[in-house]
Amino acid sequence: MRVLGVDPGLTRCGVGVVEGVAGRPLTMRGVGVVRTPADAELGHRLVAIERGIEQWLDEHRPEFVAVERVFSQHNVRTVMGTAQASAVAMLCASRRGIPVALHTPSEVKAAVTGSGRADKAQVGAMVTRLLRLDAPPKPADAADALALAICHIWRAPAQNRLQQAAAQNRLQQAVAAHAARTRTAQTAQTATPAAQKGRTA
Amino acid sequence: MRVLGVDPGLTRCGVGVVEGVAGRPLTMRGVGVVRTPADAELGHRLVAIERGIEQWLDEHRPEFVAVERVFSQHNVRTVMGTAQASAVAMLCASRRGIPVALHTPSEVKAAVTGSGRADKAQVGAMVTRLLRLDAPPKPADAADALALAICHIWRAPAQNRLQQAAAQNRLQQAVAAHAARTRTAQTAQTATPAAQKGRTA
Repeated sequence: MRVLGVDPGLTRCGVGVVEGVAGRPLTMRGVGVVRTPADAELGHRLVAIERGIEQWLDEHRPEFVAVERVFSQHNVRTVMGTAQASAVAMLCASRRGIPVALHTPSEVKAAVTGSGRADKAQVGAMVTRLLRLDAPPKPADAADALALAICHIWRAPAQNRLQQAAAQNRLQQAVAAHAARTRTAQTAQTATPAAQKGRTA
Repeated sequence: MRVLGVDPGLTRCGVGVVEGVAGRPLTMRGVGVVRTPADAELGHRLVAIERGIEQWLDEHRPEFVAVERVFSQHNVRTVMGTAQASAVAMLCASRRGIPVALHTPSEVKAAVTGSGRADKAQVGAMVTRLLRLDAPPKPADAADALALAICHIWRAPAQNRLQQAAAQNRLQQAVAAHAARTRTAQTAQTATPAAQKGRTA
């Protein structure tokens, strides 16, 4: 499973590609940052982010894109730009038919450090260890993007099990509903001739 | 001046095209809503909005795109979707080199009704009157998109005057600075022979 993690931002948009499956050592395929100048017009910054993300998708052909879920609660001043950068990343992936998964910052921290309240340094240290890197990726946005990709690879089996359970549940309900409909139809079929008999009698 | 106004939203993205110049009667060229299903995945909704906006740009070839400026203060639950939809609209316009202008809701209300705190009905009524329509455009998002376009046409001359004034100011400063530099240089040139004379004397 090859996953592009995106830590969205207008000034620095962290990107990182990780390959592997849960329970096996993971491999980093690439890490970087898409930057846009703070003094450029917002529309031009979004175009620059689109170009950057497209290059990463072209080069690494990920099967999934994991984007940080943005909340409006924290960091009110920068949250709009973060939401807009994340929209561009999701748009680029969905346009190519690549499934997009959103993970919250605490889900990502919990996945790689065991604590949803871990700090940047702790996340960087664990990313370095899990991907067997020589040093923590810099800036922090790049490390966060790798953490997002790792989080997705590790959460995917659980999510798949949940989806399978839900699908199984829906299947059972459909089978039960079909059985109930068949019973009703049979009852109706058997009832009708009797009713007709009654009427003809 | 032909302007596409966009009232961004994930479920309903209002779009309206107005043509004209400040001080003359304005003409509506088109109005509508780009809708996306609330139960679709976020990425797919953004792709649908992109397609919708692209169609409006293809059909009407606006010279400007006016988008509502999104604030994170109000309506915390829906603001992220609004920010993401606005990012797609800005991206589509900027990708084509069409200038994007952002106007706040109160700027738009003040432009078309005279009051920054006017309600939806008042905005709808004034849009109907200003564009000489038979009835207020529905839903409100469509009327708001037209109001944004009208606001841009009416504010543009003021913004241009401000920009011209600023440019004029910068020009005067540059002329003054150049004159000062020239005076200093002349002083230096006239001073130097005297100093040399003094030294040779």
